Amino acid sequence: MTTDADSTRGSNALAQTPAPGTREVPARTVPVPDTVSRQMQVLIGAPLSPTWNVIPTTAEEWKAQVDASAAAIMSGLPALREALGVKVEPMSIDGVKAHLVTPQTIPLENRNRLLVHVHGGCFVSFPGESGTLEAILMAGFGRFKVISVDYRMPPDHPYPAALDDAMTVWKAATKMAAPKNMAIFGSSAGGNLTLAMILRARQDNLPLPGAIAPGSPMSDLTNSGDSFHANAMLDNVLVAPGMNCDRRAALYANGHDLKDPMLSPVYGDLRGFPPAILTSGTRDLFLSNTVRVHRKLRQAGVEAVLQVFEGQSHAHYMRDASAPETSEAFEEIARFFDRHLGS
Amino acid sequence: MTTDADSTRGSNALAQTPAPGTREVPARTVPVPDTVSRQMQVLIGAPLSPTWNVIPTTAEEWKAQVDASAAAIMSGLPALREALGVKVEPMSIDGVKAHLVTPQTIPLENRNRLLVHVHGGCFVSFPGESGTLEAILMAGFGRFKVISVDYRMPPDHPYPAALDDAMTVWKAATKMAAPKNMAIFGSSAGGNLTLAMILRARQDNLPLPGAIAPGSPMSDLTNSGDSFHANAMLDNVLVAPGMNCDRRAALYANGHDLKDPMLSPVYGDLRGFPPAILTSGTRDLFLSNTVRVHRKLRQAGVEAVLQVFEGQSHAHYMRDASAPETSEAFEEIARFFDRHLGS
Repeated sequence: MTTDADSTRGSNALAQTPAPGTREVPARTVPVPDTVSRQMQVLIGAPLSPTWNVIPTTAEEWKAQVDASAAAIMSGLPALREALGVKVEPMSIDGVKAHLVTPQTIPLENRNRLLVHVHGGCFVSFPGESGTLEAILMAGFGRFKVISVDYRMPPDHPYPAALDDAMTVWKAATKMAAPKNMAIFGSSAGGNLTLAMILRARQDNLPLPGAIAPGSPMSDLTNSGDSFHANAMLDNVLVAPGMNCDRRAALYANGHDLKDPMLSPVYGDLRGFPPAILTSGTRDLFLSNTVRVHRKLRQAGVEAVLQVFEGQSHAHYMRDASAPETSEAFEEIARFFDRHLGS
Repeated sequence: MTTDADSTRGSNALAQTPAPGTREVPARTVPVPDTVSRQMQVLIGAPLSPTWNVIPTTAEEWKAQVDASAAAIMSGLPALREALGVKVEPMSIDGVKAHLVTPQTIPLENRNRLLVHVHGGCFVSFPGESGTLEAILMAGFGRFKVISVDYRMPPDHPYPAALDDAMTVWKAATKMAAPKNMAIFGSSAGGNLTLAMILRARQDNLPLPGAIAPGSPMSDLTNSGDSFHANAMLDNVLVAPGMNCDRRAALYANGHDLKDPMLSPVYGDLRGFPPAILTSGTRDLFLSNTVRVHRKLRQAGVEAVLQVFEGQSHAHYMRDASAPETSEAFEEIARFFDRHLGS
């Protein structure tokens, strides 16, 4: 539906400089909400991430930090795979490392469907099997077959290595299943890559997937967006802008223009994108990153839906498989895929 | 789609008491975002509402405050009606005061459709014509015919007078158009009443509308929800819990149990609700009120979509008709109605 108001839109371009009106928000005590599950209360009540403001200064220090966080994730994966009945096998696709993530039973409607997963970690963290966490949750709760891309990362491999690897896998995957039966998904840096992959596929005249699910996407590396300030020190995962996660993103960008849509997809032309489901939380430092992409997709006429979870910080929805909010988030994504993918 | 995880849900009931983990958030300076229109920057950068913590102590003082805010709104209505080409006529429906709000041209697909509007104002403010603001925006941007209910309010008329009046109008309206061709909408207290009307219609075996649009609904009068704390002093409209708006709601509740779903619809059984579109902003004190209802609707299997606007405080989307975000919000609701209403 259009109205007369459409014709006056041109004069309402986004402003370039902020107006006066900065809000001085006094110090506050924010309790753990009683409107989430007990499991989510534990996540929300956890102290700030211990490394949020610990910034390595050498490639070796980065690698040590990356190894430590990967080891922490890895220690939980066997039990998670067991609980969700999911099998993970390393593979190589045209020279790119990946993992095939398969649920024990695949329902009839998903037999000819295939998902491609790009993991998060601010473009630097979660190499190898540690990157498969979200793919295991999606395979387990949604009962889809998933290929999780183990893309190359900084400090050794800056942009566009990750995107190149993801596209190599995407190109190969479109020969394994009909593209309309496929979806791409991932959170944080993986949400950025999900969006950038669509921009790149369109640019390279490759087929697009039938749907996408960018979770709390790191869609704006310039850190524009209200929640970078509004949710600072409230989000206990990313905590505040300009710190560890942003330094990792800077290693990825490696001096490229941060407003390039391949690095900050919110600045891209999103017309013709596949149907998209976006996920965030009310305390998410990337809440603005998420809702801005949602609005841009809707403005571009794309079918796009948004789910925002009570009290959650950045990507909390993938931290505890036993939390009802976790299955709820992934089952909602699965239903969206089911509605939009061919079979 | 369901998974094995569904069978274990029962053990994941919401916790009754918050876990430890209260977050101490230091004082912060939150700039006006440059990711919204210039018009929205003006709204976001405005000082805190001058009456947010000014609490009248007598009925006369309340009426004086209500008269002042009504007069402020009224002064802008003639220009708004003119700009959007909308006509407003007072009417009476089975003894309840209302306004018929009609756009200059009604497109063919909306000729047999009718919307019912319940205005906001924390159950006490915006009597008479001052309650028609949102109805004018909906009629103008969506080009629907709207009946706006001028329901009775405290201090003279506490709960359930407002709901009774809204139901009288709803009952009469279902004789004017086919219920499946109708939607109910409203923001803030109007979002509360929109949801309560569905609960009440179901209880009274009245037909349900084809769709609803609760905007930033005041869905939980107990003030449970993370954003009551997280967005306190950041939202420049409601500002913080326990102040003026809550005192008005208390006049409405008049001692009734605040957890009664007719007063706090988030605690209601939302199964069988009509398709719903919910609207909020990232700084909204009622962001949790909004996303919790969205999740509850989705958990109940209801088609429900969420739009959250960058940087906006409570119901900012209806403050400046010239802001592109305003037409965007109402046109999105209109498209949702178009998709779900019979014609």
